[in-house]
Parts: sequence; C-alpha cells; structure tokens
Amino acid sequence: MNTGEDKILLSHGNGGRMMNNLIENLFIKYFENKILNEQTDAAIFPVSSPEMAFTTDSFVIDPLFFPGGNIGKLAVCGTVNDLAVSGADPLCISVAFIIEEGFSMKELESIVRSLAEEASKAQVIVVTGDTKVVNKGKCDKLFINTAGIGTVRKKNRLVSKARNIHPDDLILINGTIGDHGIAVMSARESFNFKTPVVSDCSSLNHLIRQVLDQSPKVKFMRDPTRGGVATVLNELARKTGLGIEIDESALPVNKGVTAMCELLGFDPLYIANEGKVLIVTDPAEGDHILEIMKKNELGRQSAIIGRVSGDHPGKVVLKTGTGGKRIIDLLTGDPLPRIC
Amino acid sequence: MNTGEDKILLSHGNGGRMMNNLIENLFIKYFENKILNEQTDAAIFPVSSPEMAFTTDSFVIDPLFFPGGNIGKLAVCGTVNDLAVSGADPLCISVAFIIEEGFSMKELESIVRSLAEEASKAQVIVVTGDTKVVNKGKCDKLFINTAGIGTVRKKNRLVSKARNIHPDDLILINGTIGDHGIAVMSARESFNFKTPVVSDCSSLNHLIRQVLDQSPKVKFMRDPTRGGVATVLNELARKTGLGIEIDESALPVNKGVTAMCELLGFDPLYIANEGKVLIVTDPAEGDHILEIMKKNELGRQSAIIGRVSGDHPGKVVLKTGTGGKRIIDLLTGDPLPRIC
Repeated sequence: MNTGEDKILLSHGNGGRMMNNLIENLFIKYFENKILNEQTDAAIFPVSSPEMAFTTDSFVIDPLFFPGGNIGKLAVCGTVNDLAVSGADPLCISVAFIIEEGFSMKELESIVRSLAEEASKAQVIVVTGDTKVVNKGKCDKLFINTAGIGTVRKKNRLVSKARNIHPDDLILINGTIGDHGIAVMSARESFNFKTPVVSDCSSLNHLIRQVLDQSPKVKFMRDPTRGGVATVLNELARKTGLGIEIDESALPVNKGVTAMCELLGFDPLYIANEGKVLIVTDPAEGDHILEIMKKNELGRQSAIIGRVSGDHPGKVVLKTGTGGKRIIDLLTGDPLPRIC
Repeated sequence: MNTGEDKILLSHGNGGRMMNNLIENLFIKYFENKILNEQTDAAIFPVSSPEMAFTTDSFVIDPLFFPGGNIGKLAVCGTVNDLAVSGADPLCISVAFIIEEGFSMKELESIVRSLAEEASKAQVIVVTGDTKVVNKGKCDKLFINTAGIGTVRKKNRLVSKARNIHPDDLILINGTIGDHGIAVMSARESFNFKTPVVSDCSSLNHLIRQVLDQSPKVKFMRDPTRGGVATVLNELARKTGLGIEIDESALPVNKGVTAMCELLGFDPLYIANEGKVLIVTDPAEGDHILEIMKKNELGRQSAIIGRVSGDHPGKVVLKTGTGGKRIIDLLTGDPLPRIC
C-alpha cells in the first residue's frame, strides 16, 4: 500500500486529496468490484427478489485484534449473520470507518485485508463506504459500521414462521457457547492461559443456507451475540409467551471457557458468540437438522440444547446437571462491554 | 419518555433489559412503522424496482447541535441526499448509534426526535438499527451511522449519463454555498455575530425528483458536502478529463458566510454544504432546470454558476470578479474537521 503516510491524519477524512489516496490505495485495492469502482455517492445494484432484508451493526470492540479475528472480520460476520438468520442470502454490504487521528496505517490495512477476506469467504461484496477521522482522543482507535442487504426467498421468510412455535419444538445450536466473549476478554486483560480461547467469529450464511434448503421446518433462527444465548431465549420466550427449557448437560462449552467463567464468576449463557446460531424447529426435524449442521465445519459440535415448553410461560429455565431448575433471566448489568 | 434513567449507561448497550427499554421507549416510540416494529435482526421490505441504490455515512459532527439542525437531522439528510443525487428515490434507512457512557438521555431524545421528523419529511422510514455504548472518554458524546436504500428508475440512472458530459454543459446549484460548515464552526467556537449563519441541512430528494421528472437532460448530480463545491467539481473534472469554469460573480453566498470566510481566511468553495446539489446539464436545458428549482423552497436562490470547458482539461478554474482566473485545486489540509 502506498498512501504516503504511516498514520491516519485528519485530512484523510476531509473529502479531498488525502482521502482520495486512502480510498484508491487502500479501500478500492482490497474491496475492488465493478459496483464499488464506480465510486458514486450511492452504489447501484440489480435486484432479483420481491423482498429484501436490510440490517446494520456498529463495531466498537476493544481490543481491535483478538484470537480468531479482528474488528474487520467481525464487521463482516456480524452483518452477514444478521441477514442469514433472517432467512436472507447476503448480497452486498456497506463499510463505514470512524478512525482516530494518529491510528496506524499498517493496522488499518491489516483490518481492511481481513474484512475483504471474510467478505470473499461469505460471498458478499462491499459496494459503498465512508471514512471519518476524528481528533486524537475523540474515539478509541477505530469503529466500523457495516450495513447489509440480502435477498429473501419467499419460503424462507422466517419472520412470520416464528408465530408457529409450539411446545415441544426443539432448540439447536451449531456448537460451543461463549468463545467470542471470553477470547476478547482474555485479549483485553492479557490473561496468560495455557489453552487460549479462540473466538468463534465466522460467517454462517453457507451453513444456514444448507439447513434452510434441506429442512423446511425451521421456525426461528437468531445469532446469540451480545447478551449470549440467555438473552435470545428470553426474547423468544417473551415474544411467544411460551416457556423455554435448556438442558445444562447438553450445552456445548469449551474447557477454556468453562475455566475462565468459573474463575471470574461469569455464566457462559450470557457470553457473546459471533459464529453461532440458535434454531427452533419442529420436534420431528431435530435430528435431521443436527445431521445437516454437523457436516459443515462450522457445525461439528452442534447439539439439541433444549425445548419449548407449555410450562412457566415467558421464562427460560435451565435444568442443571444436578437435576435442579434455575431461571435464566435477562441480563441487567454489563459484565463485558465492547465485545463487538 | 420513560427509560428509567437520565443518562446513558453501559448496560444500555448490552443486549439485555436496559437496551430493550431504550429500544421500546425511545427508538420504537419515535421511528415506529410496521417493518421496524418486527424487531428482527434484519428488516424485510418489499422491492418493486429492478435496480436499487445503497449508501452509507457516519456522522461525527461537533457540536451535536448547531443553528439549523442537529446530528439526528443531519444523519437523515446526508444519506437521503446521497441516494437522491444518484437518481434514486430514498425508501428506507438504518440508524446506528455509538454513544458515550453518561450521555444525556434528554439530548438523545431530542436527537432521535429530529431524526424521526426529518425522516418523515423526506418520506423515508427507519427500518433497522443498532446501539452501542462505549465507556466514558472512549468516544466524543455520540456518533450516528445511517445507511440508506432507494429505488432507481431506469431513465434516472445517472451513473452512466455522466459519460455524456460535454464542453458547454452548464453547472447549476440550488442556492448559497458554505452555510453548513460556517454554521457548525460558529456554534463550535461560540462566535457572537449579529446575523448568525444557519446550516442549509435539508433533504433534497423532493427537489431532485421534481428536476428529474421534468427534465430528462440532467447528466450529473452531486451534493457538495465535505470539501465543498471545489472538491466535487475537481472530481468531475478529473473523471471526465474536461475543464470546469466557475463564475465567481454568479456564486450565491450569504453575507454572513462571506464575512466569516474573510475573517478567517477560508474560501466558501471549500466549505461543506448539507442541502445543496450541483447539477450538470445540456446547455439548452439550463434555464428550464433553474425555473423548476426556483419553485421549490429549497431552490429559491438557484443559479447557473459555470460551465464545462474544453480548455484546461482536468482542472477547475474560477473566473474572479476582477476578470482574472484562478485554479481551484483539491483540498489538501483539513481546515474544518468534523462538520458532518
């Protein structure tokens, strides 16, 4: 890269010559595609479906680099997954940077490269973007916003299907919980563990497409990011007015995550994931979906973790290993800010 | 509003109970519409055109409130205008907040209210959003990102029309230049002028629609925000390989802007606007477009400010009031950071 500077300056955000350099020598270099190359105020793209999905997320994660990824990769995964769990096929994304004056150009390039690589993996293209630079001390290094657009196939319109959730429907997840939040916290606090926890940060659209193509009985999907599995299940319980029962012994949790949670008094059910999807399905379809997910490398440790229940309406209940029951409520404080 | 707190807390961004309160008692209250109310990870909306436009902008303006608007209003206008100048009809927007812990809930409500009012005026709906809260000192009060989607009518596909720009084509603007940048700077520095400059911050989609509907000869439109009129014209000169000649005496500039610029050594050509559009058109159509724009309240002071030229290719030249010529180059430094 040759942007002529090794640090970000205020003038990289002024709309003039320096910003043009940055756009052409960094963003266009990595994100290049026919639509973006037009460099117009808005990207124009063809549409082939009668309905589209639209989502946005800002990423303020601290630190920017963590085991298993960085803010660039995360900014793609987060938005791709929000589209995918809505039953949409991600098509294109926007990328907007807010950068602190003095930020390292080398780190920016590394983040942009990861973002481009993950976009390519997820098969979405970056079609439009924005760069703002704020004075030193006015933001913490770098924030990214991505918005994403996806096409919706009529039969995958999950919004309305959630209304068909009934007692005995099964709840599945595609693997271990809490990895992302714990990986970020470890990186932040520089804990020195023998087996470091690696973030699960991944784009799930291909896995989810496989499930939707082969199983028409999916009623609900959601990625348990901030607030973790507990938060998504609470929202689901509240929305449906039904109860949710989770079986603690069925929950996949990595040893490193269990160890860290015990040490720090956290519950992995509340810890953020960035490569997980919770699926609610008809009971007859549980094993089939499990089989589909296990064939995908992002679903090797998939499990049926619980069920919808007619009891304790609106509440999430954990059946503990010792046979007891514990109510899993919505998060109130914020034990782990800025994990995404 | 009753979110239970008068300041933003970290837990307003944790995905849990407090964030739900904020979403339901503030965002849904002001932005309410059928699509947003679903509160899914991605908004699903119907599509009726074969092509769509997509754009994004982050807003980091300082101060948040300025004469003529605030960051909420600006976040709508900026994105609506990027869609409109691309020949698209703005349809829906996303809104993502990054908020500093401790930010006033009352100011947030005031910003959200302005945002909703401007969206209603521009006839776009907020269909999806995101809220992140960062620790005190990790961002400067509040940043907003909006992304926007618009429908493109085939005959208004301006991207390809820019290739038809020829010498003698006319350049028009819908009013005075530099108002936004100077208004923001005055608010920031607390200058105490008798006639305060008011930002031109406005959504231009209705004005632009009137022009496009009544005049098929528009070849190019762009909103001169960061870097001002000078920057847009330089990009145009570079892109077309043609020259641009601007007539200083034809440039509409408010007295207050002229006075401030003289005092501080700024050139209004480089100062940001947030309610202006530059239009390039066939020479035969100039007066007609002028007439259409002048009928709209956002175009009362419209003017033909210059022309495309076969001379000095790739350069923008200002014909001064005294008969001289001066090259207007791309901005290099950043005299006015954070004006949007």
